[in-house]
Amino acid sequence: MLYEINEKALKLESEGKKIIRLNLGDPDMATPPEIVEAAYASMKAGKTKYSSSYGELRLRQKIAEVHGVKAENVVITPGSKWAIFSTMFLTLKNGGNVIIPTPYWTAYDLIAKSFGAKTKLLRTEMEDGWKVDLAKLESLIDAETKMIILNNPNNPTSKTIDAETLDGIVEIANRKGVIILSDEVYGAIAFSKVKSILDYGADSPHILSNGFSKTFSMTGWRVGYIIANKMLIDNVTKLNQITFNNVPLFIQDAALKGLEFHAKIASSIKAKYKERADLATKKLAAGGFKFTKPDAPFYMFPKRDGLDGEKFTLSLLDKGVAVAPGTSFGDYREHFRISLTAPDYQIKEGLEKICEAAN
Amino acid sequence: MLYEINEKALKLESEGKKIIRLNLGDPDMATPPEIVEAAYASMKAGKTKYSSSYGELRLRQKIAEVHGVKAENVVITPGSKWAIFSTMFLTLKNGGNVIIPTPYWTAYDLIAKSFGAKTKLLRTEMEDGWKVDLAKLESLIDAETKMIILNNPNNPTSKTIDAETLDGIVEIANRKGVIILSDEVYGAIAFSKVKSILDYGADSPHILSNGFSKTFSMTGWRVGYIIANKMLIDNVTKLNQITFNNVPLFIQDAALKGLEFHAKIASSIKAKYKERADLATKKLAAGGFKFTKPDAPFYMFPKRDGLDGEKFTLSLLDKGVAVAPGTSFGDYREHFRISLTAPDYQIKEGLEKICEAAN
Repeated sequence: MLYEINEKALKLESEGKKIIRLNLGDPDMATPPEIVEAAYASMKAGKTKYSSSYGELRLRQKIAEVHGVKAENVVITPGSKWAIFSTMFLTLKNGGNVIIPTPYWTAYDLIAKSFGAKTKLLRTEMEDGWKVDLAKLESLIDAETKMIILNNPNNPTSKTIDAETLDGIVEIANRKGVIILSDEVYGAIAFSKVKSILDYGADSPHILSNGFSKTFSMTGWRVGYIIANKMLIDNVTKLNQITFNNVPLFIQDAALKGLEFHAKIASSIKAKYKERADLATKKLAAGGFKFTKPDAPFYMFPKRDGLDGEKFTLSLLDKGVAVAPGTSFGDYREHFRISLTAPDYQIKEGLEKICEAAN
Repeated sequence: MLYEINEKALKLESEGKKIIRLNLGDPDMATPPEIVEAAYASMKAGKTKYSSSYGELRLRQKIAEVHGVKAENVVITPGSKWAIFSTMFLTLKNGGNVIIPTPYWTAYDLIAKSFGAKTKLLRTEMEDGWKVDLAKLESLIDAETKMIILNNPNNPTSKTIDAETLDGIVEIANRKGVIILSDEVYGAIAFSKVKSILDYGADSPHILSNGFSKTFSMTGWRVGYIIANKMLIDNVTKLNQITFNNVPLFIQDAALKGLEFHAKIASSIKAKYKERADLATKKLAAGGFKFTKPDAPFYMFPKRDGLDGEKFTLSLLDKGVAVAPGTSFGDYREHFRISLTAPDYQIKEGLEKICEAAN
């Protein structure tokens, strides 16, 4: 229902209705002007032609430097969604299943189903701090299991996976010959350091997907990347050649500019979202919701016993606030997801309407 | 070998070698400055967020107007490659075969194979003016045939399909219940009017794929579209949602600007390429090659009896001219493809080196 809510919100807006948009992970902050200017300079310099399906070497080198890997382990994608789709497609198109801890980002499941792969959901609970149960994970793996998807930090809970649990997951995956796809798109702006799948080596069978959307407020630009072993990078590049060909060069130049002042941007974005997370924590607690404290931007995934999240979301949209129902993230009917990505005054107003509507 | 040649040419260039690039359909003309400025204005206006996976309504409306269809029949894609991949994927992912006249653009075959669809090649001959034989087409169709791909005008021959043959193909497809995907990316700049698949109605089962790359010298921007019945448009949009999400809004605004002075741009581009086609026709004839006269930009697909096009292409690359071997377009070993998309003086020099090398 995530996309339906969004298209409905867009439609209401196009009809002139004012909607407080807390339904998408799309930062309200504008793309930094330095990044816009870098794109413009690049376009004017004629960087508007077909280019390599690997992505530009300079950008791949810079990303490699940031993550401590080699450029040959990096391929540029149109957003981290393509990083996820392409690696899932290549790993699962000939059959097999993928294990996905829930609550989870809707797209993983839709992607798997789009080419007939089976998904096995591994439920985690708010009451356990959304922790993956290693024994349960191991028991879900069968001969057909090809992949485990981690979203670290997690959308919609904003929880990170603690180092010990991640060690355990990697140990099981290695022993069973299963590939981990680790979507770490919120990693660079997490409130505390996150252990990455790359800490187990870039030449491992495991895959990192990441993007510029969240860190640099570049959601609509569609630029992300995969870090993995060279063979997978080559195979993704072949798929790129027959699907979208290349991310526009001027967009890659813009992303490169972002990386040049990475630390500065990421820390100011982090501080802003920490403030908002603190505000939401206070308001939602006062409103009687249950939730875990976020480790990262942008989401909160509150629960109220007995709530029908879908009905709640639709009635809230009529009151001018868009959120996402918990059922969009698995079997979590009593939850809903709030995205703290609107201007502060709208978040405040949105949270108040949410608390009113639930009472 | 098309992509390998390209990556090799890029590598030689990055090593400082001068390569005359006649291997790709990438116009040497810069994107018109009005289009660049439109993109910049759009970025500065903050159109850098996630947006609809259908594409922007204003752009869809303008495209609909150009083609005489409704906006609901249009979806925006990252280049016409995605228009082709997505419609082939949706039609063929559960099995079946697709008929492709040859010589053909490599990507059709690679796309089909990427998700396990079978391809049936329908050979056409230079000696017949590259005409599709209707009886042969009909005999190739079996119970598993889901799609016929037309590339009109054709890459690599630059031949258009005459109205009578197209009528015949559509009649067979309708009678047999097979979908036609008509890739008309060179249609708007053809030297004479091309009968379009849309002339048989936008609500038919048939599909048009098109792009801005060739008409507006926007290859690297990656923006194209599909025109088809509403159900297919909705299904492509769902696939867009889980793959790349949206074409950047500022790129869609740039494409819209292009359409606003469509007629002016297309006619000046046409005139330029007509000149080049005439030059190449003269040079290649003098060099003793056989070929058909192009009906459209950008390609020539000359033949010399006994030539090994692959060896020829590789040795030509060492001499600083990149072309594409005929085997990249089907079983046409004696052919090679020249793309007339370099500055005039380079085309002249390239053609001379080609004539020398073949003698």
